[in-house]
Amino acid sequence: MRLLIVGGSDAGIQAGLRARQRDPSAEVTVLVADRYPNYSICGIPYHVAGEVPDWHDLAHRTRADLAAAGLDLRLEHRAVRVDTAAKQVDCLDGAGGTRRFGYDQLVVATGALPARPPIGGLDQLGPAEGVHSLHTIGDTLALTDSLARRQAGQVVIVGAGYIGMEMAEALRTRGLGVTVLERLGQVLPATLDPDLAAEVQATLHRHDAAVHTSTPVQAISRPGGGLVVQGRGAARWQADVVLVVTGVRPDSRLAAQAGLRLGVAGAIAVDRRMRTSVPGVLAAGDCTVTYHRLLESDTWLPLGTTAHKQGWIAGETATGGTRQFAGSMSTQVVRVFDRVVAATGLRDQQAAEAGFDPVTVASVADDHKAYYPGASPLQVRLTGDRRSGRLLGAQLLGHLGAEVAKRIDVLATAIAYRAGVADLGDLDLSYTPPLGSPWDALQHAAHAWLAHAGTAPAGRPV
Amino acid sequence: MRLLIVGGSDAGIQAGLRARQRDPSAEVTVLVADRYPNYSICGIPYHVAGEVPDWHDLAHRTRADLAAAGLDLRLEHRAVRVDTAAKQVDCLDGAGGTRRFGYDQLVVATGALPARPPIGGLDQLGPAEGVHSLHTIGDTLALTDSLARRQAGQVVIVGAGYIGMEMAEALRTRGLGVTVLERLGQVLPATLDPDLAAEVQATLHRHDAAVHTSTPVQAISRPGGGLVVQGRGAARWQADVVLVVTGVRPDSRLAAQAGLRLGVAGAIAVDRRMRTSVPGVLAAGDCTVTYHRLLESDTWLPLGTTAHKQGWIAGETATGGTRQFAGSMSTQVVRVFDRVVAATGLRDQQAAEAGFDPVTVASVADDHKAYYPGASPLQVRLTGDRRSGRLLGAQLLGHLGAEVAKRIDVLATAIAYRAGVADLGDLDLSYTPPLGSPWDALQHAAHAWLAHAGTAPAGRPV
Repeated sequence: MRLLIVGGSDAGIQAGLRARQRDPSAEVTVLVADRYPNYSICGIPYHVAGEVPDWHDLAHRTRADLAAAGLDLRLEHRAVRVDTAAKQVDCLDGAGGTRRFGYDQLVVATGALPARPPIGGLDQLGPAEGVHSLHTIGDTLALTDSLARRQAGQVVIVGAGYIGMEMAEALRTRGLGVTVLERLGQVLPATLDPDLAAEVQATLHRHDAAVHTSTPVQAISRPGGGLVVQGRGAARWQADVVLVVTGVRPDSRLAAQAGLRLGVAGAIAVDRRMRTSVPGVLAAGDCTVTYHRLLESDTWLPLGTTAHKQGWIAGETATGGTRQFAGSMSTQVVRVFDRVVAATGLRDQQAAEAGFDPVTVASVADDHKAYYPGASPLQVRLTGDRRSGRLLGAQLLGHLGAEVAKRIDVLATAIAYRAGVADLGDLDLSYTPPLGSPWDALQHAAHAWLAHAGTAPAGRPV
Repeated sequence: MRLLIVGGSDAGIQAGLRARQRDPSAEVTVLVADRYPNYSICGIPYHVAGEVPDWHDLAHRTRADLAAAGLDLRLEHRAVRVDTAAKQVDCLDGAGGTRRFGYDQLVVATGALPARPPIGGLDQLGPAEGVHSLHTIGDTLALTDSLARRQAGQVVIVGAGYIGMEMAEALRTRGLGVTVLERLGQVLPATLDPDLAAEVQATLHRHDAAVHTSTPVQAISRPGGGLVVQGRGAARWQADVVLVVTGVRPDSRLAAQAGLRLGVAGAIAVDRRMRTSVPGVLAAGDCTVTYHRLLESDTWLPLGTTAHKQGWIAGETATGGTRQFAGSMSTQVVRVFDRVVAATGLRDQQAAEAGFDPVTVASVADDHKAYYPGASPLQVRLTGDRRSGRLLGAQLLGHLGAEVAKRIDVLATAIAYRAGVADLGDLDLSYTPPLGSPWDALQHAAHAWLAHAGTAPAGRPV
């Protein structure tokens, strides 16, 4: 069986490895558009910060690992055309030639592309001028080169999503001046409610990163040696380097050419076994729609964790497996300096749109017993359905070291099993004074929610 | 409604507080045998270590908090007799007098007593001679007094359960020489399989605490100024202080006098609403049997978390509520120096006794991406049922800071919902390189289990 995979990042590589695990006789070829297969894109900010000095270390696996696992990688092979009838893919190779690959099963894992927001001048400016996007290892090397070459002192980051937050930290860690400009009224608008977002913004300010929300960028220009970022009215920011990280869009160009049906947000439509509308063609990762475990419908939620799982399922399907992708709940965590932000599931508006009657209740409890040194407040926002009492989503904000990441995982697990908010109080969670409380902060939050939502007798854990 | 509660620790206080939340008109009286209501017994080692310098800080709540919540505490009131027909309890008060209290509803929350192992001489030795148990604040003050007064340099700890481990760390932190003697062949015999226990033992040795397993203590004597602990044969250890922490047994003396039915391990039999065999009499905490969520039957698992939940349910039942105790899964976590050990659910032998076909598979994965500084190996042992694929239990051992405690909580949550091992791989868990991996260590472990147990196509996450 010839399995051809277009894309050498998380989804593509997982598909290939899983296929080879299940069928060691599979001939797996991976067409990689650039020279950087299987890199941890999520690790880029930590290289830029200097915490991971050698960018090669960001590789999930070495090329030798991938070869040993039976993956035939073709670097600088950009797929440009799929003939699904003839089962062939045409590529441009690095030397300017054209190559054709036949397949029995094809996995399209072309990932995402940076969004290009409507900012004047942006189309005329690029890395050569110090204006960068940040989505690939190539982008990363261009950025670090730019920072060094320009002896950059000031960077403007356009976009306060999680990459904007991570890059603000990274560049401050590098000692640079940082200003973050966000069009919407808060940081992390896709992740957090405004009150927690305000605390994240305060964290950035404490670490001397300026943040301006409700600040759309109108234009970027390069009048002299440096860059000028223009906001509304007379607002101007000078910068040596500008980083535009305003989100991504699915790269479904190849899929569209191939005639695959597209779905939500223009991503490739797939079923829960990652099958596209065309037999023999699978797709996985950021280029595809994302089945949502709680909404039980398709969304588009590009995340590395999801890409891994979808790729894994594509590898199963390609080799005759029947396991389904269980779905995403948009579980996320991001470290911002000495704080950790995490979220899973639905927020009020999404939940209401999905027909729930959402109630969100905020509470605060110590991460561990207050008498033990180092206790810190953990902020919890739980969203539940007033009618059914079902847990729908959660947002956490706490200190680094307060086990915020795995606490959101507890909630993600509960939501996956359709837990009620009240059920959280029943969970047999672990406790030792340096690491928790007899009622964990999550259980405090659950009882606070119940007291407020009135679906159960009032009262907080005591 | 007059609610009388015998016992001022976790279960009793929770019952009172919950009752008052639900029914602010309830007259709640709590008979506390000693002078230390509502202390965090789990915090004792951290006071002895000096990390919590003032033992008063170990109180979960101040007496003012409890009074404000409407609890009428009677200190040094030891209940000695219950007349369930007349609905009366007789006490000895601190002044040597007898007091009688009537009730409409009674909660028996008398807790546990230290086990007294069959060690020669133990009955003749006590705090005055430097031989201590450690179950109450009174015990704690006696121990710290003894350590100071004797200018103790060497302490022998008899028993390597979790309190033995915590006290070994505490006494080393205090700068004392520590030797732990354990009758069974490993440390933490009730919690861990031998291979992980060996690593905990190595951790103790690295911190200069001696540990001897398979070493039953035959006798303790006081031939001169110091104590001598006698093992088998010619083995002898000299000590200034000996701490005997070989477990606990339910304190069901009052319940037996009252004619309440006893169950597993001699603990008070209760249903899942914490009702005893006698109408109007509830019981909660370490003195009662523990419904096991996975076994779906009674066990005896004295833990602070369980006592809180059972007390809470007793408070509900006393005020007309109908919520049931969901059950324990014996979820535990203990910090041992720079390591954290956690467990939940069943181990092989328990699972086999319960009719499962258990398979336990060990695996190791980094707690977060290896390229990010500070990654450390997390050891995971998953126990699942070969026939059904159901997850039955787990043991974790990792470094402090590796979010071990909340990772066991993820598994405890999954087990509560009867998850299959395979389902762990489907969970949408959080990921950022400093705090996790695209496939979390738990998901690696799940795939390793599947590959080994053969209930699903082979292969580890890749």
